[in-house]
Amino acid sequence: MNYSNHQPIPNLPKLELPKVVIVGGGFAGLKLAMSLRHSLFQVVLLDKNNYHQFQPLFYQVATAGLEPSAISFPLRKIFHGASNMSFRMAEAESVDTAAKRLYTDIGYIDYDFLVLSMGADTNYFGAKNIEYFASPMKTVSEALYIRNKIISNYERAITLPTVEERKSLMNMVIVGGGPTGVELAGAMAELRNNVFPKDYPELSFKNMKVVLIEAGPKLLGAMSEEAQSHAQRYLEDLGVEVLLSTKVLDYDGKAVSLDGKDAIETQTLLWAAGIKPNRIDGFDASQYAGNGRMLVDEYNQLIGSEGVFVLGDQSLLPGGDYPKGHPQVAQVAIQQAKNLSKNLFRIKKGESLSPFRYKDLGSMATVGRKLAVVDLPFVKFQGLLAWLTWLFVHLMAILGVKNKLFIFLDWSWNYLSFDPSLRLLIKPKAVRASERKELIEEKSS
Amino acid sequence: MNYSNHQPIPNLPKLELPKVVIVGGGFAGLKLAMSLRHSLFQVVLLDKNNYHQFQPLFYQVATAGLEPSAISFPLRKIFHGASNMSFRMAEAESVDTAAKRLYTDIGYIDYDFLVLSMGADTNYFGAKNIEYFASPMKTVSEALYIRNKIISNYERAITLPTVEERKSLMNMVIVGGGPTGVELAGAMAELRNNVFPKDYPELSFKNMKVVLIEAGPKLLGAMSEEAQSHAQRYLEDLGVEVLLSTKVLDYDGKAVSLDGKDAIETQTLLWAAGIKPNRIDGFDASQYAGNGRMLVDEYNQLIGSEGVFVLGDQSLLPGGDYPKGHPQVAQVAIQQAKNLSKNLFRIKKGESLSPFRYKDLGSMATVGRKLAVVDLPFVKFQGLLAWLTWLFVHLMAILGVKNKLFIFLDWSWNYLSFDPSLRLLIKPKAVRASERKELIEEKSS
Repeated sequence: MNYSNHQPIPNLPKLELPKVVIVGGGFAGLKLAMSLRHSLFQVVLLDKNNYHQFQPLFYQVATAGLEPSAISFPLRKIFHGASNMSFRMAEAESVDTAAKRLYTDIGYIDYDFLVLSMGADTNYFGAKNIEYFASPMKTVSEALYIRNKIISNYERAITLPTVEERKSLMNMVIVGGGPTGVELAGAMAELRNNVFPKDYPELSFKNMKVVLIEAGPKLLGAMSEEAQSHAQRYLEDLGVEVLLSTKVLDYDGKAVSLDGKDAIETQTLLWAAGIKPNRIDGFDASQYAGNGRMLVDEYNQLIGSEGVFVLGDQSLLPGGDYPKGHPQVAQVAIQQAKNLSKNLFRIKKGESLSPFRYKDLGSMATVGRKLAVVDLPFVKFQGLLAWLTWLFVHLMAILGVKNKLFIFLDWSWNYLSFDPSLRLLIKPKAVRASERKELIEEKSS
Repeated sequence: MNYSNHQPIPNLPKLELPKVVIVGGGFAGLKLAMSLRHSLFQVVLLDKNNYHQFQPLFYQVATAGLEPSAISFPLRKIFHGASNMSFRMAEAESVDTAAKRLYTDIGYIDYDFLVLSMGADTNYFGAKNIEYFASPMKTVSEALYIRNKIISNYERAITLPTVEERKSLMNMVIVGGGPTGVELAGAMAELRNNVFPKDYPELSFKNMKVVLIEAGPKLLGAMSEEAQSHAQRYLEDLGVEVLLSTKVLDYDGKAVSLDGKDAIETQTLLWAAGIKPNRIDGFDASQYAGNGRMLVDEYNQLIGSEGVFVLGDQSLLPGGDYPKGHPQVAQVAIQQAKNLSKNLFRIKKGESLSPFRYKDLGSMATVGRKLAVVDLPFVKFQGLLAWLTWLFVHLMAILGVKNKLFIFLDWSWNYLSFDPSLRLLIKPKAVRASERKELIEEKSS
């Protein structure tokens, strides 16, 4: 705990309103904040980043189809002109629930209602080598890092004289057969089929593998059998090697070793095999489920702490229709935020709270051009129509008119040209002394 | 010199054609390479980055108006389908002119014609502290770094309780009254006037200074008096403090000290006060002018080395209409490249060479919305018409239909909304262990 922790967060407006402090501007936190604009609550939203990230399209950033800015939305923008709202780029550190005080790296803040919507991070299930060498993709920064890494690898591959030396730079292995893994594998295969051969005519892409590894017996475990089998066929048609019921044993940065199968040489291991909820200090072990999600009641109230709510991936409501907790997807987070917003207004009016009921709107995943799978509550379909549905739904879900417009244009461009033109190795670096300076500052602070 | 230097660059096509090796894909190198597509020369283009950078718009990247990708163009793309062309992302290290061999960090390459178009970098004129603490803007990466730095500074400022503490984070000082400095100062002032107050309603922007410092008696020294006085008035109307005939003495990262004037507190010192040509080992001191530019004849042939040409900022043709050398601007680089391309074909046919004649097409600079200054050979104008001219010329000059389209849309958007929406702190970072791994790899390689 550092010095600033012992002072209140400065420059917040002093309002005589109940204070809602929201930690995390993901789907849940953002939705809740937006619904409290111009209300009789004072709202303070905290996030590590100054932007909301649209996670469903990370894989397109990683595969050079979209710019990070297209799927990121400045959080301060939603607060323009709303005098009851404040945003701070900050990391929450701990909670004193007795004093109703949240400590952060920029000071503390007292709350009437604390909302934890901190999301989840990559879970390596204790595999230290994999954590050390694999690339996760739970932030837009990590997605951009993957893009840069892949381009660097190809620029390096072309400087090596033999096929053998180039192999590990060219092969790509994706672990995790959920929507993220499927979408990454499909997009990578399309890069190999349509884009890289034009950029690197001197290299042979026949030997370049795109491998998708899943520990379970099926891809897209949460979807219908039709979706599962279609997704697998689509991937295999694109030339993805799909390894089901396959466990990753270890990874040393050069080759990934598998249980009962040959190791695969690769310097690009993308890990999309699991998530674990983010955490904050100050709560009792009894308030957590075994998997790190926080136990809530049907109003998303944290069990055992008054005035604290938990939303989205971080929360777990035991029992009911989802005895192991609701699926950790955007729809649940958004619906919980809507419900909590309604309940905050009810609390204010002294009315009784309304319990959360999840309405499953269906799920979908895209594999490639004109290839997607969609499960809706009463109908399932695949192929071109599913792909168009996927495009439309994601375009509508993204925040901001400009983002919508630019993504639509990017997608149209990429569709017509077979050429996602974002294969640029751009890093925000001061190349010389000033960069060292930043490093020094970071160390000393 | 490392091991790879002792091997030829691998995977290049073996063609029985005279080999043109171009170092640097800036305006000159790119123009030359494009004009040699599908010719009877084998062309190898080398650049440190895998993209061409459109320098005139760096300042818009720094001020959150444009994405880096909008003003960067993948160099491999211009080589698609041209079997006589190859690109390598590499750094040229030295030349053995006797053996006609270029050494790079990925191996050596033998040339028939070597073209140096390596451009220029920031010149601090020996001021070590300034080099250490100031931010240069000679690459798109550096421009993006400036953007991130400014946003970080504001996010930090809002966490500090007193005006006094916030001052150095909010003030911005730009050194150099050429087009880059003028354009940066104008764009920064517009951010302060229109954007920041909406993002940070808790902060007072009355005290935030944007200062432009120029050592000479006039801004835009190379332009007409009308342009100079209009630019200064436009800047002052936007609230920029213009300090002419002012020398920067020192900078410690917190405050910049000036000769005969009060020091200015700032953590953002943008240095656009001078350039120096990039260099490569292997040439004689007599082949350089005092300012580091390489001495060429009227055919851009390096004096004293057969088969070596130098283009753009890096070259200097003494005597003639420009006794101190041509201005170091894009137009000269492009026209020299066109002339050299013509001459290479003439050499092939055994014809005599055509000397370079610079045709000055005029110059322009933009200050802000509807505010620009234009000097054409026969007419000078300022204000709205100049601004529209500036927009049109830069839009036409940018490479690629997609870049043109996206810049046009970005500009229209920003013009209508007063809200350049790219205020996102996104860095391509793997947040955890894998990042350390990259650091380790970089060190050990």
